[in-house]
Amino acid sequence: MPRGNMLIAQSGGPSAVINQSLVGAVLEARKHPDVGKIYGARHGIQGILGEDFLDLRKETVATLEGVANTPSSALGSVRKKPKPEECKAMFEIMRRYNVRYFFYIGGNDSAETAHIVNEEAGRQKVELRCFHIPKTIDNDLRENDHTPGFGSAAKFVALALKGIDLDNRALPGVHVSVIMGRNAGFLTAASALARTAKDDGPHLIYLPERAFRADQFVRDVHAVYKKLGRCLAAVSEGVHDDQGVPILAKFTKEQDSHGNVQLSGTGALGDLLVAEIKAKTAIKRVRSDTFGYLQRSFPTIVSATDALEARRAGQEAVRAAVEKDADGSIAIVRKPGTRYGVRYDVVPLRSVARETREMPAAFINRQGNDVTDAFVNYAKPLAGPLPKMYRLKGVVARKELA
Amino acid sequence: MPRGNMLIAQSGGPSAVINQSLVGAVLEARKHPDVGKIYGARHGIQGILGEDFLDLRKETVATLEGVANTPSSALGSVRKKPKPEECKAMFEIMRRYNVRYFFYIGGNDSAETAHIVNEEAGRQKVELRCFHIPKTIDNDLRENDHTPGFGSAAKFVALALKGIDLDNRALPGVHVSVIMGRNAGFLTAASALARTAKDDGPHLIYLPERAFRADQFVRDVHAVYKKLGRCLAAVSEGVHDDQGVPILAKFTKEQDSHGNVQLSGTGALGDLLVAEIKAKTAIKRVRSDTFGYLQRSFPTIVSATDALEARRAGQEAVRAAVEKDADGSIAIVRKPGTRYGVRYDVVPLRSVARETREMPAAFINRQGNDVTDAFVNYAKPLAGPLPKMYRLKGVVARKELA
Repeated sequence: MPRGNMLIAQSGGPSAVINQSLVGAVLEARKHPDVGKIYGARHGIQGILGEDFLDLRKETVATLEGVANTPSSALGSVRKKPKPEECKAMFEIMRRYNVRYFFYIGGNDSAETAHIVNEEAGRQKVELRCFHIPKTIDNDLRENDHTPGFGSAAKFVALALKGIDLDNRALPGVHVSVIMGRNAGFLTAASALARTAKDDGPHLIYLPERAFRADQFVRDVHAVYKKLGRCLAAVSEGVHDDQGVPILAKFTKEQDSHGNVQLSGTGALGDLLVAEIKAKTAIKRVRSDTFGYLQRSFPTIVSATDALEARRAGQEAVRAAVEKDADGSIAIVRKPGTRYGVRYDVVPLRSVARETREMPAAFINRQGNDVTDAFVNYAKPLAGPLPKMYRLKGVVARKELA
Repeated sequence: MPRGNMLIAQSGGPSAVINQSLVGAVLEARKHPDVGKIYGARHGIQGILGEDFLDLRKETVATLEGVANTPSSALGSVRKKPKPEECKAMFEIMRRYNVRYFFYIGGNDSAETAHIVNEEAGRQKVELRCFHIPKTIDNDLRENDHTPGFGSAAKFVALALKGIDLDNRALPGVHVSVIMGRNAGFLTAASALARTAKDDGPHLIYLPERAFRADQFVRDVHAVYKKLGRCLAAVSEGVHDDQGVPILAKFTKEQDSHGNVQLSGTGALGDLLVAEIKAKTAIKRVRSDTFGYLQRSFPTIVSATDALEARRAGQEAVRAAVEKDADGSIAIVRKPGTRYGVRYDVVPLRSVARETREMPAAFINRQGNDVTDAFVNYAKPLAGPLPKMYRLKGVVARKELA
């Protein structure tokens, strides 16, 4: 066990529980005599390169616990992968700060950063333990049954759909919810958790795992509308055509700094789908809502299971690095059996870096416009219990005329 | 006190607490021996004309209490004003059902419906007590200090902005939140409740009460961005130019059934403002979220004060109609003094029908791009307490290089 200082940072899109992982790691590290100073870099590797460090030993437990329950990356975040020369610069800084433990909280792009740093450290013979701590509301990290951040975002999406369903019952029409998820449809699929009664929305769910055909989408919507007099569709922002081109990419050239097409922060896809339905059917009331950033940082909408697991992921990463002198990532693995439970495995960084995972075929229905019961059973314990929505018993009064 | 049956319905946009008013009225009516049957018409006057009635005496208190805590109009809603011949048809139906008490829950358009029904009833010598029960998240009913539904929507907006502010601190840039409000900016203004620290967003607030100039908007955003490295703007969907033409109206012809331009259910305004900022500045990360229907029917985000007052408004309407043999609307009036308190006045239907009220000038800053402390003091007790967001104390580590 090398004695030395620790450096931790956050990267990628924030979540409601990403600070649980930060605080879990920091409080765990404080217990280990081999860990000296605990530095928090602001805005990920950008803060490392800029020597922008906070002294996290100076934070009280009360503040840390408050931060753990506050959404969005408390250290700030960044979307940036280090080039080899930047790794060299970071190692020089880490050497001066006597950093022997490096923790990076984030999704697949952040895991790749940790992987690059780890590989370069090996190449340059730098004594450094590198750990990635999983986070992504997209739930698309490989090796993991699910990822911290997903459960809380899933809870938000499910509650939002419950509300939209009730709203749409009151003023019927077609409603399209556009939900985050570039390559994986898990979060959009979580809209299915809103359902209790048979005619509850969403009635249709479209995922990036299946090619999206606008004509089939309109036919599906129309069929539900003819049957129920209304229709709720949940559509992933990442839906694409059979060539793999995102539907939205045809209308925008905006890219994020990883070179991905910008899908969030715009209502364009929803408006596009609404226009398509209006052009091809006689349905008058057609609306869309794009959940955007609300779904990933909304205060108070947190899954208790998600918060707990995010905390544990941070703790386990520190334990593995310090006690086992290991590099890697923490993967959440579901225990077999009917009762929900997980364990925290150490997996190689390369196994979670860059590439993402999609929803298993068993979670998607044959027509590709809904999820299966298997998905609902999978996702339910992650989002946690949802409040019951009540309807009037609705005893129809005896007709006096007619 | 005429003995007879009661008919109640809901109209206009749903809210998180509109069922509190329904349940308050129904449970109050059950206490009065002069009220016979209690009919609930589905989808407002459309249900009356279609003889689509539920027997609300058949509902258990447990179900009613559950419904009271469930968002969106449990009886269904409608956007429709009755023509004189439709009033006649309704009176015929009411006569056959021996309806002597009519309650209509909704905003200014719904108050106008109640007013039309009441006037026609007088003209046609129909013995009918007509009461409007206030509801609107827009908070724009005249005679009222504030309206049921506003406090809960304000709480949602404030929480959303707290989350977006934290998200934007982590990944800085410009963010535009588009918030509901056609003629009155109260709900958009409620975004100010998200602020605690001096640099908390939203940094700019644009309301329909002031002419919106795109060039000034971009200048304002740019100035904040230069100072803070980020900027959050909250913009009402109803912002309009100095000719009174909604900014969005220039890009859409969609109308609702009251003949108003459709402002909700589209991300167009947000996308338009983002494009404007990108075209006129060098800022790269510019995003927008349109809160849409999420802000008016989101389960669990309810202001306790709002829920209580919505309940009382329903109760008071029944008391006034049955005990005082009156027609009118219930207006919520704030009691003078430092401690928050309200009373429930009976006001004439005509005084709340059709026309809306705007935000008082004292609630808007001189530049027209923010609210004043007077507004914050006004709105705080309506949204109720908000959770504290924590930040790291942030002790900067001693620099080893540089």
